[in-house]
Amino acid sequence: MDGYSFSTEVRIRFAETDAQGIAHHASFVVWLEVARVAYLARYAGGYQAIRDSGLEALTTEVVLRYHRAAAFDETLTIWTRCVDLRGARFTYEYRIERAGELVAEGHTRHAVVDRETYRPTRLPAWLAEALATAESSAT
Amino acid sequence: MDGYSFSTEVRIRFAETDAQGIAHHASFVVWLEVARVAYLARYAGGYQAIRDSGLEALTTEVVLRYHRAAAFDETLTIWTRCVDLRGARFTYEYRIERAGELVAEGHTRHAVVDRETYRPTRLPAWLAEALATAESSAT
Amino acid sequence: MDGYSFSTEVRIRFAETDAQGIAHHASFVVWLEVARVAYLARYAGGYQAIRDSGLEALTTEVVLRYHRAAAFDETLTIWTRCVDLRGARFTYEYRIERAGELVAEGHTRHAVVDRETYRPTRLPAWLAEALATAESSAT
Amino acid sequence: MDGYSFSTEVRIRFAETDAQGIAHHASFVVWLEVARVAYLARYAGGYQAIRDSGLEALTTEVVLRYHRAAAFDETLTIWTRCVDLRGARFTYEYRIERAGELVAEGHTRHAVVDRETYRPTRLPAWLAEALATAESSAT
Repeated sequence: MDGYSFSTEVRIRFAETDAQGIAHHASFVVWLEVARVAYLARYAGGYQAIRDSGLEALTTEVVLRYHRAAAFDETLTIWTRCVDLRGARFTYEYRIERAGELVAEGHTRHAVVDRETYRPTRLPAWLAEALATAESSAT
Repeated sequence: MDGYSFSTEVRIRFAETDAQGIAHHASFVVWLEVARVAYLARYAGGYQAIRDSGLEALTTEVVLRYHRAAAFDETLTIWTRCVDLRGARFTYEYRIERAGELVAEGHTRHAVVDRETYRPTRLPAWLAEALATAESSAT
Repeated sequence: MDGYSFSTEVRIRFAETDAQGIAHHASFVVWLEVARVAYLARYAGGYQAIRDSGLEALTTEVVLRYHRAAAFDETLTIWTRCVDLRGARFTYEYRIERAGELVAEGHTRHAVVDRETYRPTRLPAWLAEALATAESSAT
Repeated sequence: MDGYSFSTEVRIRFAETDAQGIAHHASFVVWLEVARVAYLARYAGGYQAIRDSGLEALTTEVVLRYHRAAAFDETLTIWTRCVDLRGARFTYEYRIERAGELVAEGHTRHAVVDRETYRPTRLPAWLAEALATAESSAT
């Protein structure tokens, strides 16, 4: 995918469908999180490492545009990239495809906070560098 | 709430929280749906009536901005209004509050489709009128 | 309901249905928790009060028997009672009805643990008494 | 695993955790379904094939005993076997492990019904044979 170098796959669970016979639109929000966790595992030692260092990444914005319905047992590819790191904030962009066909796209924004106080905290240097390296190596 | 005349309440379930100790961000997407269902029950005979008439309303876009974390057992008020009906499409706007304080806000877009063919279908007149009346009476 | 004095209602959400067109069986597990939370709010100051006193109630067993399918937007009544308190353990029994008709029934078992160590801890006297009083007053 | 020849792995998602800091107990019910779907994909052409033949498998009973808490990002192995096929009914047994350690165990019961009428229907011969073969080859 143009501009994306990382992708994760999810297989749609039966529990993720609804009575419309398709994947419920809220399931996609969970899959974006699965993709972020896989991204951090690949490039930054995993989300649990970030949590273990006393931080949490809160989600401050979700934007999703759904282009096609997706059905039980289909495999979706979630192209994921991290953009716009500054201070305590960063953004992920996503493109969700099924066999090369666009199913949905969107972005999420996040703020790093201290796990105890829930106050915004600059990304630690190791994490900012890991994410920056991930994306620069992507191009 | 300014410009909103309809609201629904949700009480945050334990299952809707996550290991950050707060409501998971995907739970909000489900609550917006709960609010739409309540809105349609109030103004348009209920979502099931729409389904029974051979239609489904697909969600084509979700936008949510999270301003404050919300915790287990808190009661949230979801202010909801339907805007921009045209042809097969309509938009809902939301403002989620806890005791008058803004917790999140956003909108969702929808397309009415035929339940069998999944093709976009004009909102039936009764539904378009019901929604228009709901919002005009709101002001 | 025979032997039950407390009930909660849940309205089935669209997100809780699946592609079989009915409520997903895992949704019932969440509703049992909603019923426990309501029960504790009524008889024991709420689950958050228990958590605030440094305890968590872990679920150690779930048993559910499904007798009838339930559909979107239906209202279910969850009859709930607490039985068998001893030491750190207690059991809830449930009967889920729709307009007086049995939809599902089951029980859950729980162990009270310390929030920090996750070690089993005797129910504090105030909680054991609150639960015992709730059930004795029920008969 | 003794008596089990099939297993599936699930990686615990952040959305599947709760404010106790561990995987929510209802998440396990969804994982059992993931395991059944994987089992059917391996031995019986997939659950969608069953649905496409006009049948659904309803869940009529869930029994789960939780022995240890499980945390975000852990990988669980779900040992799965199908037992007791008769007429329209069958049972699955499960053993959920983390690195060889028992985390939970249980079973689910199911009834095959016609997708239109929701009436119990004998398992079609091809499916009964596929499941019987799966388990006999397992020993």
